Amino acid sequence: MATVSLIEYADALPEVRAVFDDIQRTRNVKDVNNFWKALANHPATLKRTWDAVREVMQPGALDALTKEMIYIAVSVAHNCDYCTHSHTASAFAKGMTPAQYQELLAVIGMASETNALANALKVPVDQPYLK
Amino acid sequence: MATVSLIEYADALPEVRAVFDDIQRTRNVKDVNNFWKALANHPATLKRTWDAVREVMQPGALDALTKEMIYIAVSVAHNCDYCTHSHTASAFAKGMTPAQYQELLAVIGMASETNALANALKVPVDQPYLK
Amino acid sequence: MATVSLIEYADALPEVRAVFDDIQRTRNVKDVNNFWKALANHPATLKRTWDAVREVMQPGALDALTKEMIYIAVSVAHNCDYCTHSHTASAFAKGMTPAQYQELLAVIGMASETNALANALKVPVDQPYLK
Amino acid sequence: MATVSLIEYADALPEVRAVFDDIQRTRNVKDVNNFWKALANHPATLKRTWDAVREVMQPGALDALTKEMIYIAVSVAHNCDYCTHSHTASAFAKGMTPAQYQELLAVIGMASETNALANALKVPVDQPYLK
Amino acid sequence: MATVSLIEYADALPEVRAVFDDIQRTRNVKDVNNFWKALANHPATLKRTWDAVREVMQPGALDALTKEMIYIAVSVAHNCDYCTHSHTASAFAKGMTPAQYQELLAVIGMASETNALANALKVPVDQPYLK
Amino acid sequence: MATVSLIEYADALPEVRAVFDDIQRTRNVKDVNNFWKALANHPATLKRTWDAVREVMQPGALDALTKEMIYIAVSVAHNCDYCTHSHTASAFAKGMTPAQYQELLAVIGMASETNALANALKVPVDQPYLK
Repeated sequence: MATVSLIEYADALPEVRAVFDDIQRTRNVKDVNNFWKALANHPATLKRTWDAVREVMQPGALDALTKEMIYIAVSVAHNCDYCTHSHTASAFAKGMTPAQYQELLAVIGMASETNALANALKVPVDQPYLK
Repeated sequence: MATVSLIEYADALPEVRAVFDDIQRTRNVKDVNNFWKALANHPATLKRTWDAVREVMQPGALDALTKEMIYIAVSVAHNCDYCTHSHTASAFAKGMTPAQYQELLAVIGMASETNALANALKVPVDQPYLK
Repeated sequence: MATVSLIEYADALPEVRAVFDDIQRTRNVKDVNNFWKALANHPATLKRTWDAVREVMQPGALDALTKEMIYIAVSVAHNCDYCTHSHTASAFAKGMTPAQYQELLAVIGMASETNALANALKVPVDQPYLK
Repeated sequence: MATVSLIEYADALPEVRAVFDDIQRTRNVKDVNNFWKALANHPATLKRTWDAVREVMQPGALDALTKEMIYIAVSVAHNCDYCTHSHTASAFAKGMTPAQYQELLAVIGMASETNALANALKVPVDQPYLK
Repeated sequence: MATVSLIEYADALPEVRAVFDDIQRTRNVKDVNNFWKALANHPATLKRTWDAVREVMQPGALDALTKEMIYIAVSVAHNCDYCTHSHTASAFAKGMTPAQYQELLAVIGMASETNALANALKVPVDQPYLK
Repeated sequence: MATVSLIEYADALPEVRAVFDDIQRTRNVKDVNNFWKALANHPATLKRTWDAVREVMQPGALDALTKEMIYIAVSVAHNCDYCTHSHTASAFAKGMTPAQYQELLAVIGMASETNALANALKVPVDQPYLK
């Protein structure tokens, strides 16, 4: 259960509705997901966060699916339950294949293991990596 | 300074040299980086880790550069200094452009922020994400 | 479900009851929350932890509400479900307003994003910060 | 050493200079700190991040010093070296007393311990905290 | 709910059954736990992970129970719900006493607190620790 | 560089000296390490932390070396540079063999990998683990 109420469109302030409208239009969905309904308790945070997500996640030098997979990797490393579920679903919706998902998981697992080993051993960074 | 000695090729056991040879051949480098020299203190861990990294990081359903970028994302989230430096260098060596790097960073930053917000608000996972 | 039984007052050893009594008196509550019932499986840890919490969380140079908000920030960053819920509830009980809570969340989110960016970019610490 | 060049004012694009100017004016400093010089490699991220930081960190329902102390708490929990140094310096610059700093540290330490205990014991959240 | 189907023995590919058989034989259990059923969606990851776990967790210079307790410590620090539950259960199955478990928890909690304090204070590493 | 001065014995308050004396006596060392010199800026935190460390780390149901290895595991997972160095040194001083250290590292690495995989896959906890 969230620490705040989830604000539904019908009960939302005009500035919240404006953001919800933009999310629905941009993503072509009929309703926003719970994350935005929770943020809607603070319209300034809602707007700032959505504006940033929309800007950052649009295809550019990296395509939209690659960005979703990076988002999953970060969410898993931070162990965000909500984000892992929602971005895994988004990545599949954007065409991630099961084979891609499995390789993504394998890289996340591998990186987690070598991160721990390097941190434990205090391996000094090789000079060429620092130039 | 590492918690163990870094083992150089000249001082390495035959089973360590065999792994070093394979790393050098696979990556087309003249010397292995410090991470492997540190792992070489335990030949079984060295071999197991290298075999896994080679298998996981080869191009497959995801290309080699995408895998490096995912590796960076995990390493940043775990704050592994060594891994962040080494995989950022590897990604550039594999052709990551500055524009791609900047978008990677923006996604990592954005995900970190929304991970924290979702965890703080304890947002319940939407039903459609759980099917 | 906890990995240990939750010890109720009626079933508690005298040294556990003494701590429970002090928690109830200090906080003016009729029953201790589950965290303490779980710790009660090890009376020494229960006593040491409660003595420390009571000392650390009492108003001093920082008031009690500020301390609760800092506790929330740490709990969110460590993604402790129990602690996030319990300290958010405590902060509201101590008078945190919805506006304060929203600003707290915004700072936690912002810090999480810039933490990730600084760690990814390996920004060197400015000299004046080190003196 | 950073993974990117630090961009100095003299070498900066006009849109970067505009942000640097705003930082210097808002904070009444003669030069921006390294974090912003690193972000300046991507003017869009620089602007978005600074706009968000300025908005989030301004005094509101919480005063500026309380916000800095929360920022420190998050930065320590994420172990961001740069951010811990820079926000500790900022908090002192905003009037944090040594006694306040010591109490901040004590709360961060205490929270870290009980976070770990609650996560290890899988303590179920008390019903009253979920309403 | 998992992001993938859990593969049961009856529905598994021959190479998955071979791993399941080895897990059941090695651990003397009638069925594998859910972690392996989830990994079974990618037989290569399943086999690689199981081979590594079997090798790493066998008694050697450290006995099996000590290894389980270290596994719990890492799982708690990473806040892995599944791993904390499963390795706590495994440790008890391998003979961990309640008193040992309580001391394990106390060390995990203590380490978490001093980790945070050392990170916050940026304590420089003593020279003798670096030789 | 620490965010506080390191307090040397010669400059310490009587209540700080009393703790320093006890650390030196308990550990049979001529000087305390930097962590305690940093904590000495706040005598109450110094005393509380040392009293807790002394109680928690004394041999009991677990021997002193096992406790040090668990401390290392937690410190690596939290990526505490200072703590990883100091507790690795302590463990060696208490008789940890290179072979034990290598197995400790292998378990830490393995746990980190499977923690990430379980968190990514959202593997539901098996019923028998919850009883």
